[in-house]
Amino acid sequence: MDANVKKTALRMIPYGIYVLTAEGADGSIAAATVNWVTQASFEPPLVAIGVKTDSGAHAIIEQQRTFALNFLGKEHAGVAFKFFKSLERDGNTIGGEPFRAGRNGAPLLECANAAVECKLVDIIQRGDHSIFVGEVTEAVVSRQPDGRPDDATLAMRDLGEKVFYGG
Amino acid sequence: MDANVKKTALRMIPYGIYVLTAEGADGSIAAATVNWVTQASFEPPLVAIGVKTDSGAHAIIEQQRTFALNFLGKEHAGVAFKFFKSLERDGNTIGGEPFRAGRNGAPLLECANAAVECKLVDIIQRGDHSIFVGEVTEAVVSRQPDGRPDDATLAMRDLGEKVFYGG
Repeated sequence: MDANVKKTALRMIPYGIYVLTAEGADGSIAAATVNWVTQASFEPPLVAIGVKTDSGAHAIIEQQRTFALNFLGKEHAGVAFKFFKSLERDGNTIGGEPFRAGRNGAPLLECANAAVECKLVDIIQRGDHSIFVGEVTEAVVSRQPDGRPDDATLAMRDLGEKVFYGG
Repeated sequence: MDANVKKTALRMIPYGIYVLTAEGADGSIAAATVNWVTQASFEPPLVAIGVKTDSGAHAIIEQQRTFALNFLGKEHAGVAFKFFKSLERDGNTIGGEPFRAGRNGAPLLECANAAVECKLVDIIQRGDHSIFVGEVTEAVVSRQPDGRPDDATLAMRDLGEKVFYGG
């Protein structure tokens, strides 16, 4: 297989940008920008997310088995760049972004357009990222979209002409 | 959980449009339009795809354990609508679309911008769609994108203002 051809083909997948959040047993918070996200079933409502195996979010979610997926809006490129790196909780903020606890205890970013709270139901560990399968147990929409909901979501391309995560 | 809030939140995920293809042991061909697709690891290169449990593609891929994911271009809305329903092979065409066999035997649509050939490595069966995890074993790019590769891909929104699959 030609590595460049594989890269070009896989980069043809368009992505939205999300922040995956979870709270550890010790009150620590993980918040990680992710883009490898898809719905995976209507009933029960499932999402599948690729999560870097050596990330803080991976460790906490594997242990706590609950998380939230926060949907960023078009104006949240700065938030996305913040959570490319691991940050520490400071009271009820992380990276300067206020959050509150969702019903399942996972942090919901106040800035996000929406979030789904999930219960981890499966982990597939086969590569440098695991696939976390979450069942959606609660959903919040903080800002009702004007047009199509998917148009309101920050996209990979909004982060810069040369920014990709995939390939 | 409020079903409408959940629907709005999950519809905030933007999607590309693909045709999932496979050939059965008897020479039958499955070609199904899908959008629940994400990369899931760099090394090995994995993709995760939500596949309707009662679809022909599900049955054939579960048995043959090989498939191809064909990337549609902006001009291929008609192709996407064709493969919303199950069609029969006619020689080396399906739904009037010519295909050739990939290295792994799965059909590659001649019209597609690109395709990845995959070996099925996991199936997660928990809902009305299964998650097929495929390891990418080969990739072809038939039309080199001018700009960003993800901009060349047919998007859910290109199928119509009210067209969604998710929520």
